[in-house]
Amino acid sequence: MLKLFYNPGSIALASHLLLEEIGCDYEAVHLNYAIMEHTKPEYLAINPKGRVPSLITEKGILTETPAILLYLAQRFPESDFAAPEDIYELAELQAVTSYLCSTVHVNHAHRMRGYRWVEADDETSLAAMQRKVQSNMEECFALIEKEVFKGPWVMGDKISIADPYLFVFSFWMEGDNVNPADFPKLLDHRNRILDRPAAKKVVPLHQP
Amino acid sequence: MLKLFYNPGSIALASHLLLEEIGCDYEAVHLNYAIMEHTKPEYLAINPKGRVPSLITEKGILTETPAILLYLAQRFPESDFAAPEDIYELAELQAVTSYLCSTVHVNHAHRMRGYRWVEADDETSLAAMQRKVQSNMEECFALIEKEVFKGPWVMGDKISIADPYLFVFSFWMEGDNVNPADFPKLLDHRNRILDRPAAKKVVPLHQP
Repeated sequence: MLKLFYNPGSIALASHLLLEEIGCDYEAVHLNYAIMEHTKPEYLAINPKGRVPSLITEKGILTETPAILLYLAQRFPESDFAAPEDIYELAELQAVTSYLCSTVHVNHAHRMRGYRWVEADDETSLAAMQRKVQSNMEECFALIEKEVFKGPWVMGDKISIADPYLFVFSFWMEGDNVNPADFPKLLDHRNRILDRPAAKKVVPLHQP
Repeated sequence: MLKLFYNPGSIALASHLLLEEIGCDYEAVHLNYAIMEHTKPEYLAINPKGRVPSLITEKGILTETPAILLYLAQRFPESDFAAPEDIYELAELQAVTSYLCSTVHVNHAHRMRGYRWVEADDETSLAAMQRKVQSNMEECFALIEKEVFKGPWVMGDKISIADPYLFVFSFWMEGDNVNPADFPKLLDHRNRILDRPAAKKVVPLHQP
């Protein structure tokens, strides 16, 4: 059985949502960051990066959201989230998941995880990073709304792994001081994901 | 014919190397950042993010290095860089390319592109970010050398898209004040890539 390690408030929500959407057998394990479980030897043996998500499979352990999402899409080809068979369509999907992980998530992380890039006691620089999160996230959402989002789902008529992944950042908008009403397509998308049974079950587990 | 837009000193080197390794027909277009060509309307019509690489294909334009690399690997299945057919092996490869784009590249970018996350005139915060680049990159390279790199290539016996991608960061080590001798497997890997005809042709075009 697949086993996902997650922490509430983290990007592991995307993988957790997809597991639930697909309807496969899985177990979700809540790592308690309050007692730093993600930095203990038991977890570092699973994921030496000390991050979530990690997905334990019969063949080994997978990390990194874009890799986990595509793996699930390919492992369950009968699901609505099946990966495109056409290599160009897959590349378009990959361009979206890569942008989400390398630009959108990173911009968001400068609000609460700035200590990754400056000393943890450098309050001046940490505050300077936090001040730019809103405008950076607004710029990302504007680009997604205008250039990326095809509608009704991210990639067009067919739901895909990009949908739960984008949803997590939309779900974090208010925390990043972004007004969802400024991005009507993304707000509508967020509401449609929230209305699905998978979100109703999984999202409450991810309240930080 | 495939057309790649690149800027010397950028991650577009990974895609450029792969195109050359595969030996397909392609054209490489040098964007002149000195005159801000990447911010002009002509280029923004190609890639609204104003970044490199962009790959023009017959079907449309692809962006983001992990997407471009996998697309080329799947488009040329007869090449040594063919993508794994097994979905778990592909996921392992994706975990590496995702880590390179979302963590390693981002840590590196805080040296010269810190203005993405704080105001461009905030010299104190920019300098604070620069001070942490060396230790962050050393931590990444230590993890790659110990936990990720299988040898002789990144994923084991078979060369893959992870090799030119990792190479770019190894190639940048000295600029990030990292001593390549501290990472003997990665240094050896860098030297073996540099010895290949593709690198001899392409790397000189990417001196910033």
